[in-house]
Amino acid sequence: MIDVSAAVDFSRGADGLLPAIAQDADSDRVLMMAWMNEEAFRETLATGQAVYYSRSRQALWRKGETSGHRQSVKEIRVDCDRDTILLRVEQVGAACHEGFQSCFFRAVDPHDASLTTVDPRLVDPKQVYGT
Amino acid sequence: MIDVSAAVDFSRGADGLLPAIAQDADSDRVLMMAWMNEEAFRETLATGQAVYYSRSRQALWRKGETSGHRQSVKEIRVDCDRDTILLRVEQVGAACHEGFQSCFFRAVDPHDASLTTVDPRLVDPKQVYGT
Repeated sequence: MIDVSAAVDFSRGADGLLPAIAQDADSDRVLMMAWMNEEAFRETLATGQAVYYSRSRQALWRKGETSGHRQSVKEIRVDCDRDTILLRVEQVGAACHEGFQSCFFRAVDPHDASLTTVDPRLVDPKQVYGT
Repeated sequence: MIDVSAAVDFSRGADGLLPAIAQDADSDRVLMMAWMNEEAFRETLATGQAVYYSRSRQALWRKGETSGHRQSVKEIRVDCDRDTILLRVEQVGAACHEGFQSCFFRAVDPHDASLTTVDPRLVDPKQVYGT
């Protein structure tokens, strides 16, 4: 098993979890932010597919396992403190479980903090996940 | 004081802190990830300049206050769960305190998890922060 401690310092995250940002390698859009533990990071390295850790399910989350909307990892970067991970990915379908390409489909109005959906919905979540 | 609770749910973050991703509005590069509490978010909305919360200093962190490397906020987005913030910014100078445009200046080799610096350093940190 390879030593990943020089690349990422998982001791810096609460419960050993660190933020991982997925960015579309073609469009450069920020698609989503999720969490990784060391096991998720190792499996991402080994498989070339994005694997996160689901805090709600308390289990590894192989992105796209249910929806088919997988993320092929083209490049992995780490930040200066080695406590945030950036995945540059090729996204199949929609990254967001609500059917949008990116989870960041709403903009905040700085004057009243109201939200506006500014992106088109790509797919109907019911078609992907069932009702 | 405006109600920001509909835009962002700070109760979802440990200690009321949520991840905030800064992305360059021109190049689309992901520049950094930092943390925001509600006060930092409010001040960001009010001033149009990125304000984070420094976990190490346990205080508001007005980005660029020391270095001059401020971030003018062009757009704010939130994700589907309203627990991650995306700032699209105009970055003055280098976002990273190590003198790189982006904190994500190193790539991870998936075979051995070794790190390689793949970006050029823009500025000498000693010139910015002193020795």
